[in-house]
Amino acid sequence: MRTAVLPLSTPAARKGARTREVILATAVNLASRVGLEGLSIGTLADELRLSKSGLFAHFRSKEHLQYEVLSTARTLFIALVVAPALKAPRGEPRVRALFDRWLDWSQADFMPGGCLFVTASIEFDDRPGALRDFLVDGQREWLATLARAARVATEEGHFRDDLDPDQFAHEMYGAGLAYYHATRLLRDPKAPLRARQSLENLVALARA
Amino acid sequence: MRTAVLPLSTPAARKGARTREVILATAVNLASRVGLEGLSIGTLADELRLSKSGLFAHFRSKEHLQYEVLSTARTLFIALVVAPALKAPRGEPRVRALFDRWLDWSQADFMPGGCLFVTASIEFDDRPGALRDFLVDGQREWLATLARAARVATEEGHFRDDLDPDQFAHEMYGAGLAYYHATRLLRDPKAPLRARQSLENLVALARA
Repeated sequence: MRTAVLPLSTPAARKGARTREVILATAVNLASRVGLEGLSIGTLADELRLSKSGLFAHFRSKEHLQYEVLSTARTLFIALVVAPALKAPRGEPRVRALFDRWLDWSQADFMPGGCLFVTASIEFDDRPGALRDFLVDGQREWLATLARAARVATEEGHFRDDLDPDQFAHEMYGAGLAYYHATRLLRDPKAPLRARQSLENLVALARA
Repeated sequence: MRTAVLPLSTPAARKGARTREVILATAVNLASRVGLEGLSIGTLADELRLSKSGLFAHFRSKEHLQYEVLSTARTLFIALVVAPALKAPRGEPRVRALFDRWLDWSQADFMPGGCLFVTASIEFDDRPGALRDFLVDGQREWLATLARAARVATEEGHFRDDLDPDQFAHEMYGAGLAYYHATRLLRDPKAPLRARQSLENLVALARA
């Protein structure tokens, strides 16, 4: 879940890194349910049945913990959504792979209360600071990834030459949010079909 | 803001209703900033510089207050978005009016922290109860309003006969959420242009 565990030299250091992984995985799960603002060293200690002082040694402050949790979620997002989708063939197949894996991400077991980024977007849209900056940076990077995939689809001759890749990314983002809303709030059984059709319509408009 | 103020018979009753309006308008503003869960009789009393006991007499419990606030927001939404848009000519103009007023709603001065329904959607998607039911009912009604407008556009010959109005409503909802995300979190100056283009693309695909 976290990178760079292997290069640690001593068994104690490896055990420490492993403990941190378990703590952060639990924190991602908890934050998905209670929000990033509902997450604190105290609530996490209760969830893990660990002492608060032990967790303080790991994270020092609530804000530091929140930051580590967002950072873990971003690492997971890249590992589970972006990296595998970028292995799909260039062009339209890669655009579809990004969308499919994104939909799966929003229903992931390790985030039982829904996507951490959507929740944090609402919590932090009005709060300047390091957390907001990190979140915005991640969301812009995701939109840029979608736009790049659309641009590559134009290069491959799948999408038309005059397609605005940023507009395409914006609309694909909307299709993802509509799916999220239809599954999480409305519990609409047709949500997967609707999302699928939204992508077909976007692709139809984009095609050469 | 609240309905049925006029029929109250005594000056004291009218004054009471007027006080309630002011309190609820302040509560909508506050909930927009701190979330519906952050709203309590205590935080609202601080905001209004009123006594907590006076507010308890009005609302009895936090949940009751939250419900009244959501209900006030729904009344406002119908008055400011739905009712005026339904005065636009049947067909495509009405679809456009609904979209335009919805975008304006999400930037309304009286909700400085953003749309109460979006915030509440994230807060209550996992919490069964009266608040969630009321919220879901309102969101379904809004999707049904958009679908009805699309169906009327087909009847008028503006949209094609085989258009799926519920799919159209779902995609229009996504365009609204993408706009919200682009303005609130990303502060993207191109957000209005992107939203406008999203609607043009939706309408182009829907046209007869």
